[in-house]
Amino acid sequence: MSAVPNLTTALTGPLQEIEAHFLSNQTEIEHWFRSQWMETQAPFYGSVDLRNAGFKLAPVDTNLFPAGFNNLNPAFMPLCVLAVQAAIEHLCPKARRLIIIPESHTRNLFYLESLATIREIIEKAGLQVRIGHIDPEADDRTVELPSGRTMLQEKLERRDNHLVIKDFESCIVLLNNDLSDDRPAILDGIDPDQAIAPPPAMGWSNRLKSDHFAHYKRVAAEFSEMVEIDPWLIDPHFRRCGKIDFKAREGEDCLADNVNDVLDFIRGKYREYGIDEEPFVIAKADSGTYGMNIMTVRDAAQIRELNRKQRNKMARGKGGSTVTDVLVQEGVFTFETWGDQNAIAEPVIYMIDHSVVGGFYRVHTKRGVNENLNAPGMHFEPLAFADSCTLPDQAAAPDAAPNRFYAYGVVARLALLAAAREIHSLTPA
Amino acid sequence: MSAVPNLTTALTGPLQEIEAHFLSNQTEIEHWFRSQWMETQAPFYGSVDLRNAGFKLAPVDTNLFPAGFNNLNPAFMPLCVLAVQAAIEHLCPKARRLIIIPESHTRNLFYLESLATIREIIEKAGLQVRIGHIDPEADDRTVELPSGRTMLQEKLERRDNHLVIKDFESCIVLLNNDLSDDRPAILDGIDPDQAIAPPPAMGWSNRLKSDHFAHYKRVAAEFSEMVEIDPWLIDPHFRRCGKIDFKAREGEDCLADNVNDVLDFIRGKYREYGIDEEPFVIAKADSGTYGMNIMTVRDAAQIRELNRKQRNKMARGKGGSTVTDVLVQEGVFTFETWGDQNAIAEPVIYMIDHSVVGGFYRVHTKRGVNENLNAPGMHFEPLAFADSCTLPDQAAAPDAAPNRFYAYGVVARLALLAAAREIHSLTPA
Repeated sequence: MSAVPNLTTALTGPLQEIEAHFLSNQTEIEHWFRSQWMETQAPFYGSVDLRNAGFKLAPVDTNLFPAGFNNLNPAFMPLCVLAVQAAIEHLCPKARRLIIIPESHTRNLFYLESLATIREIIEKAGLQVRIGHIDPEADDRTVELPSGRTMLQEKLERRDNHLVIKDFESCIVLLNNDLSDDRPAILDGIDPDQAIAPPPAMGWSNRLKSDHFAHYKRVAAEFSEMVEIDPWLIDPHFRRCGKIDFKAREGEDCLADNVNDVLDFIRGKYREYGIDEEPFVIAKADSGTYGMNIMTVRDAAQIRELNRKQRNKMARGKGGSTVTDVLVQEGVFTFETWGDQNAIAEPVIYMIDHSVVGGFYRVHTKRGVNENLNAPGMHFEPLAFADSCTLPDQAAAPDAAPNRFYAYGVVARLALLAAAREIHSLTPA
Repeated sequence: MSAVPNLTTALTGPLQEIEAHFLSNQTEIEHWFRSQWMETQAPFYGSVDLRNAGFKLAPVDTNLFPAGFNNLNPAFMPLCVLAVQAAIEHLCPKARRLIIIPESHTRNLFYLESLATIREIIEKAGLQVRIGHIDPEADDRTVELPSGRTMLQEKLERRDNHLVIKDFESCIVLLNNDLSDDRPAILDGIDPDQAIAPPPAMGWSNRLKSDHFAHYKRVAAEFSEMVEIDPWLIDPHFRRCGKIDFKAREGEDCLADNVNDVLDFIRGKYREYGIDEEPFVIAKADSGTYGMNIMTVRDAAQIRELNRKQRNKMARGKGGSTVTDVLVQEGVFTFETWGDQNAIAEPVIYMIDHSVVGGFYRVHTKRGVNENLNAPGMHFEPLAFADSCTLPDQAAAPDAAPNRFYAYGVVARLALLAAAREIHSLTPA
């Protein structure tokens, strides 16, 4: 079976225009990225969920504390090692050691395999790595993983203004915990000579998706001007509602109005491009949630018709936080399918420092083209990219696999650049 | 058949000590390299010929204008692309275009395939590339390559203090010509805003192998002190004789004396380590020659017994230069063999910027363990490394494939660092 999903769409309009534009502007694109990364340092790492509707290729989620590294093609391990070496050169060239802070309270083996893979990449880059958890109640713990690796998590401690594990002090602390709960006090006031990357200010207790997508909108506009495309082709439109209380039914008007506005905007664009699909929006908590509280909405009336169970579900985010801010985002169809069953496939792109290091498809047999594929309890099969996203082929058709992967890598890097600017704006110079 | 040659030696002494030391000191080694590359910028690219005697692993040639990129494993193309991007960031971040100056007067298809591969790597990194030859008599020429690629070589021109191809001007000029003939005037006095890399001062008309190995000796000494090994384990001893005229039989005494001194030194080391092999030295022109004028010597008497034909052969280097300086270098056995025929295998490691990006073995069925494998007219089969040399495995034995490859990568980077310091000393700041 092919390792590349089919892109199936009846459209003939702007299809392949994105890939063709990226391909013919490759030199300008790479030149532009180089200058951008000189201005704004890339985050240590990140993953970006993309949706590919053929006529539109856009990021829908940017994760600065990525898991899923175990889903990448092992053939790209050397690429990851090289990119980590660049990240260390940028962050703390004199580093010999690195502490990883993992997700709290998790014995999820998929997550722990990803954590073990991150550790392995950094060890191969030549650093000593230990895992320091921040669960207040737990002590050291060891888990044997299905891959045969052993995962020892030790208790992270504070010594003066430094984070340590027993006598192990590190120049770099790599955060792999999205801090959905409140930002833990142990991370406050750390001496600047110990770099925490990405900075805790980017944790979900502090960060809003709408901030990210506002940055992304500017990045997409600058980029689109250069390659001369309509920014809408790579940018999901959005609005934001604050002060929503689903349980008390406060803020519903604001939400319904914004859903209407976004749907109207999409309808206009679909007319402009002759796209014969029914627009939809995704309503989700503006703070990060790992796919909780996500609603597909095709009509503003749906908002007013939520039953109690649905409202309760929308009301609570990850880590027990109450949702008050809601992002109303243009829904982007996924028209990539894989295999005989035409399972929906959603690309997830991984980056370390400013380099794309691989990715995989979330292949999902039980979801529709307009549903979120990163939902709680959802089951997907990871399909590792056979391609590194860095080998565009000018001699091949715009939609040939290397060029489709290159397009993924370009849009994912735009989202990473937005995140880099977000970090820059949230953290003191 | 295994993709990794056997390391066959009857020795039990320091065998695997090198790999074991590198493995247990990996953190310190990578830390050290990071600090070294911050002090001294790596060359754009380079290849290093290694010889692996089991008890000793040493570079015997460092090429700053490497060919053979077509022999690398295509799986490492993304690694090459990433490393080229880093090189461009270091050299000229605003670059959109790059001119490659190839070897002169060559229609060698192996060479042209390598040139096409270099071009492809740089194009995939996002630069427009054109090939500008410096053959005075030739005009533009196109060759169809066995790989199906087309190689257009255009005439390099001078416009004021810049190198151009017609209206194509570039921020970077990549030299892939070792300038064995005199340095061409067209390269003189180029405006510093157009970077020629590696600098023409590193061409063989200007450079001496003994300078390189003197730098290497210092690098090896610093490195060996850190990892606590005898530097001899990674450093081929050498002496240099100037003013040799083989035809007129001048300088033979100097040469014979130095051969004796080096043989004596090796004998002492072999005794120290209980190595039961017959020492040999390699005498070669101190200016680069691509394997011409290379002699294996086991006894100083051989020098005085050269017949006229042998003396004539030693007297002329590549491009017709007369050999006057001779390098007398400790011979390092190659104890790696491949396949049922036990063919001799010599590793060649490739680097771009400061990163190892792959390598291959020169597999040679008709040569002995103490002969140079990069000689004119010699036939070898390239065996691409399956391994990137960057994935050491602490859990595996020191001589497991990933760790042997890692050791190759470490020693090759030491030679690259020596070349970087050589560039630094030869070129104005």
